[in-house]
Amino acid sequence: MNHAATLTDHYPTRVDTSEIQDRRDPVVWPGRSGPWPDGAVDHFATHGFRAVEGVLDAGDIREVRSEIDAVTARLGPDERVIRETSDGSVRSVFAVHELSERIASIIARDEIAGVARQLLGDEVYVHQSRVNLKPGFAGGPFYWHSDFETWHAEDGMPTPRAVSVSLALTPNTPFNGSLMIMPGSHRRFVSCVGRTPGEYHRQSLKSYRPPFGTPEESVIAAMADEYGIEQVTGGAGSALYFDCNCLHASAGNISPYPRSNLFVVFNAASNELGEPFAADARRPDYLATR
Amino acid sequence: MNHAATLTDHYPTRVDTSEIQDRRDPVVWPGRSGPWPDGAVDHFATHGFRAVEGVLDAGDIREVRSEIDAVTARLGPDERVIRETSDGSVRSVFAVHELSERIASIIARDEIAGVARQLLGDEVYVHQSRVNLKPGFAGGPFYWHSDFETWHAEDGMPTPRAVSVSLALTPNTPFNGSLMIMPGSHRRFVSCVGRTPGEYHRQSLKSYRPPFGTPEESVIAAMADEYGIEQVTGGAGSALYFDCNCLHASAGNISPYPRSNLFVVFNAASNELGEPFAADARRPDYLATR
Repeated sequence: MNHAATLTDHYPTRVDTSEIQDRRDPVVWPGRSGPWPDGAVDHFATHGFRAVEGVLDAGDIREVRSEIDAVTARLGPDERVIRETSDGSVRSVFAVHELSERIASIIARDEIAGVARQLLGDEVYVHQSRVNLKPGFAGGPFYWHSDFETWHAEDGMPTPRAVSVSLALTPNTPFNGSLMIMPGSHRRFVSCVGRTPGEYHRQSLKSYRPPFGTPEESVIAAMADEYGIEQVTGGAGSALYFDCNCLHASAGNISPYPRSNLFVVFNAASNELGEPFAADARRPDYLATR
Repeated sequence: MNHAATLTDHYPTRVDTSEIQDRRDPVVWPGRSGPWPDGAVDHFATHGFRAVEGVLDAGDIREVRSEIDAVTARLGPDERVIRETSDGSVRSVFAVHELSERIASIIARDEIAGVARQLLGDEVYVHQSRVNLKPGFAGGPFYWHSDFETWHAEDGMPTPRAVSVSLALTPNTPFNGSLMIMPGSHRRFVSCVGRTPGEYHRQSLKSYRPPFGTPEESVIAAMADEYGIEQVTGGAGSALYFDCNCLHASAGNISPYPRSNLFVVFNAASNELGEPFAADARRPDYLATR
């Protein structure tokens, strides 16, 4: 059963005509202290993101890499392990917080999970986690989108009370496919056109520009004119914290340098997933932990 | 007849095994004064490129654009006009120095052609010119290569005594597909593997990563480790002057902002084209003026 039948949908999407509405919910929620000073929290509330250097050290990065090697060797063929079609090398591993206790303990640190609790004003849990090993030369782009739009439509996340943390395992340079964000775009919600097909994640995860869940070019252009585009670079070990409703994209990578990261989404405990708001069935647990 | 049969080939390429050799010829040639101070010339000699703001003004940019509109309307279907397969909009126009007197007169200015004369120490002529109107959202990447490698192999350019000037008609930002260069790479010549097929330009101009005339990934990675990568950004009207043997590439553009430029290659008069060094036949004049 579709969520919309039982619950008011404050963020309608996958509709006939795209609309831009104001966000109805706060970005930063009161109630929890945490490691960030007030100025940092205010910056996050205004821009929708904040980058911090040195959240992981070299030993952490080695540990994450060796855990990924161990996990993929242990699992064998598994839907959580995405491999390159060309040479079979590992491109992404999903649900790493469940597959590796060591990675789970890194994620649980105060400067990672603690920041999420502070920003969301609630207990948090890992909605999704993955390690991406975007290779040099061949890393494809990923088109403009709001993660919350997808999680709302396809996973039944009621409100944008979730935050993502992207932990760099390699440097993010201006030319190896680092993230582009529209600062402030998280304060608007852009609905997307079209009806979500069945089993859509099998297609959307492979496409650089999925046909549903991506705003139209005219809307992206208008939002970019209003909010601008900022490219987020940083050293290995740096962290990018960003609100789940930021419009963001990443360019392709034709540099020789890979761009790898540990990506974790924290959802507020009170923002429990229900049935999808704009899809017929739930996505697998490794994409949306319940 | 193949040039190699009559003339010693100092830059062998399209061979069985890739090699990196030192450049045998100067980058900057003595004998001509010009608008650049010595420090600027030295910078160019060392890095292989130099960027200058404000070489074109807003009126020049409007004039180039209106000339392109007039030329494409006048020509109709023409091999010099490359259109998007999707919507038929103009992507590139070649030989604009022949098609438009106004564009030719801009190119002839001292701060454009005069710089080329100064750097090359000789009279110069336009080897190739084009206007690129790389659209937003859909602009593809272009893989690492040395222009001289192609012009030597396919156009019979004897030595790397040529300089390119890319004049920005729109801003070049870090995320709309601006040029990436390996500073200093122009002092090495990287031979490429393979034999050039017949009529190869029909394929190579359409491919983001042509199979011939592009160095192998291991070579690109080694050159990047040695020379680094610099991304060249600048305002509308800025000029990038770069040596014909620089290794360079451009990323794709998924921003809403187009990246358009007027691109001109000046060859030294004494560096006259002969028969191709590594191809069976000459390319059309609009790709290599003789």
